[in-house]
Amino acid sequence: MASSVRRGVSILGSTGSIGTQTIALLERFPDRFRVCALAAGRRAADLKQQALALKPAVIAVAAPSDAVDLEAALRSEMGAAAPRVLSGREGLLAVACAPGTDILISALVGAAGLEPTLAAIDAGIDIALANKEVMVVAGELVQRHARASGSRLLPVDSEHNAVFQALAGHDRSHVRKIVLTASGGPFREHTVEQLKRVTRAEALRHPTWNMGDKITIDSASLMNKGLEVIEARWLFDVAPEDIEVLVHPQSIVHALVRYHDESVIAVMALPDMTIPIAYALAWPDVLDLEHLPGLDLASVGTLTFTRPDLERFPCLALAWRALRAGGAMPAVLNAANEVAVARFLAGDISFPDIAATVAACMDGFEAAPCDSILELMAADSWARQEAGDWRAARAAS
Amino acid sequence: MASSVRRGVSILGSTGSIGTQTIALLERFPDRFRVCALAAGRRAADLKQQALALKPAVIAVAAPSDAVDLEAALRSEMGAAAPRVLSGREGLLAVACAPGTDILISALVGAAGLEPTLAAIDAGIDIALANKEVMVVAGELVQRHARASGSRLLPVDSEHNAVFQALAGHDRSHVRKIVLTASGGPFREHTVEQLKRVTRAEALRHPTWNMGDKITIDSASLMNKGLEVIEARWLFDVAPEDIEVLVHPQSIVHALVRYHDESVIAVMALPDMTIPIAYALAWPDVLDLEHLPGLDLASVGTLTFTRPDLERFPCLALAWRALRAGGAMPAVLNAANEVAVARFLAGDISFPDIAATVAACMDGFEAAPCDSILELMAADSWARQEAGDWRAARAAS
Repeated sequence: MASSVRRGVSILGSTGSIGTQTIALLERFPDRFRVCALAAGRRAADLKQQALALKPAVIAVAAPSDAVDLEAALRSEMGAAAPRVLSGREGLLAVACAPGTDILISALVGAAGLEPTLAAIDAGIDIALANKEVMVVAGELVQRHARASGSRLLPVDSEHNAVFQALAGHDRSHVRKIVLTASGGPFREHTVEQLKRVTRAEALRHPTWNMGDKITIDSASLMNKGLEVIEARWLFDVAPEDIEVLVHPQSIVHALVRYHDESVIAVMALPDMTIPIAYALAWPDVLDLEHLPGLDLASVGTLTFTRPDLERFPCLALAWRALRAGGAMPAVLNAANEVAVARFLAGDISFPDIAATVAACMDGFEAAPCDSILELMAADSWARQEAGDWRAARAAS
Repeated sequence: MASSVRRGVSILGSTGSIGTQTIALLERFPDRFRVCALAAGRRAADLKQQALALKPAVIAVAAPSDAVDLEAALRSEMGAAAPRVLSGREGLLAVACAPGTDILISALVGAAGLEPTLAAIDAGIDIALANKEVMVVAGELVQRHARASGSRLLPVDSEHNAVFQALAGHDRSHVRKIVLTASGGPFREHTVEQLKRVTRAEALRHPTWNMGDKITIDSASLMNKGLEVIEARWLFDVAPEDIEVLVHPQSIVHALVRYHDESVIAVMALPDMTIPIAYALAWPDVLDLEHLPGLDLASVGTLTFTRPDLERFPCLALAWRALRAGGAMPAVLNAANEVAVARFLAGDISFPDIAATVAACMDGFEAAPCDSILELMAADSWARQEAGDWRAARAAS
């Protein structure tokens, strides 16, 4: 089905991994999509090339000084066709809600994506969601806004995209369990003792996916899967105890849904983010990605599944604990983890200290019902401070 | 969702494996279903018990003498509540189209099920299809009748039921391939030489499913999968070259559908026919089968997939050949195979002779477009004769 009206796409995080893969797809299907607005962080040179190629009406970078330079450079090359160039919070909000946007690719890393994504939701724009923190920190709030505006949340994360596909054509009331798979990370077979001696370089070596540093460490600690459990709880309105995790090192089965009749729908694909990005961009249509290699299970040969070990990987158990506590507790978990991962990457704390930091921050936080971004951000700030202090206190002892 | 109107169910083959499992489900969900009519073959005593328990309005057995005895026995026990008792072809037709039937469980073995199933289709009754031969012999004709009457075909075979589920909520135009899995049978690892010495007892030992003799032999020769390829071609209106088979000894993944975006939807379940029977009975609703063990992939541990070896298992290749030839060629394949399997079970021919018999019959048949049951049945009779002769000629040489 070739649509005669091209879908308007804007991207938060256009120069990152998801952003560039999205743009490669938009360029492959020019009859289907047009680019409205692009926001990047510090990669102004990359954003300039994207603007020249895709001719968006608005672009944004993080720093005001970058915006001034970029605007001058584009004006001289494009003349009157040059985009408006904005910066900071104002820039993100303008890109998220740019005129003509039918779908926003929300692919910033961290809590910075929350406010502009919520603004787009309030404007009734559909969201292709690749920013974990949006649902982890504010899932309940985000769903409330989406229901009110009619904005649809299309998950780009491969696991949640797989759940979304496994639920298609089924009545939600027939779901028994949602199962997310985890590669298990590079330390899947490590003992508790070995985990204490893990180095930064070892943790950054992910077996199946090629991703950024933060998410690779989260993948090694299984915190990434913990964050996905929290996301799934809100994306699919499913009780925490009905979400399960299976370790599946081949990363071929991304998620499974068990129905009341004990039929299980599993969604498989080669580990390539192009597939879930394309799914979210085109939904409910399907793009023909014939340029990609197809999944050949006879070549893969063997798929294995084991239960995750919550004692060796306590970060995963903390996710269910945060959901049970409710309120801003998931925001505390997320912020404490961000700080702890940065400290591990800086060589300040050990690998098991990541979970210890997060658990300590959660111990010190009293969760209460939470109804605004301000409250969530206050919990986030508090947790960041605590996560830093915890380390300082320990180093001093 | 508890329906206030109970669905009327009739069964062709009520005392067989699918029939008795269907009845166990009907008895578990008495609020949802009522039994209208039951047809059995020679097991008159079993049918009598079913009639006493389920109080159908009509029942049928194969032999007129059994019908007379059964009618007298039921009249004496049930009085005026006793069902009408019919026999033979007339009995099957009366059961298939019994008043009040919303869904017919078509679970006879062999071509005898074709005529009554087609009669129910023409009456607009939905069909839970567990009789392979209906689609193998007359798939094109059956689909034409179903489209005309609005009858829906719900496959009970676990593989086709899985395809049906994997297609739910998806646009058919986005399908790239349909993949059926095969356990590979007990001789999966046998060499050509070992296959020549296979005994009846060895062939009847199926690794994962507990089934009748004929289907167990078909499973060992992979002819069962060949018949399923033919069924799939007509059930899902998919080109023969877009159907693939994967050997998967654990029988957990029953089928997969590859879409244009290289997402693959796989349908899994423990090997228990109760699940696809329940799916077809309740569709589009889903029964809560909480009494069944759930699929726990961590307990299963490992799933393996290999390509089938068409040289060691030529029956599978014959299926695509029959589809390419068209017309009544699938009916010839099916009839020749039935005779060859009976001969193998009787000790008359070797295991590889099954495929040789079928191939020889197909060599001798000229396929032409075929538009009636009479033509299909003529091809069936011809092939049965040929399959017998082939053996006789060989024994004489």
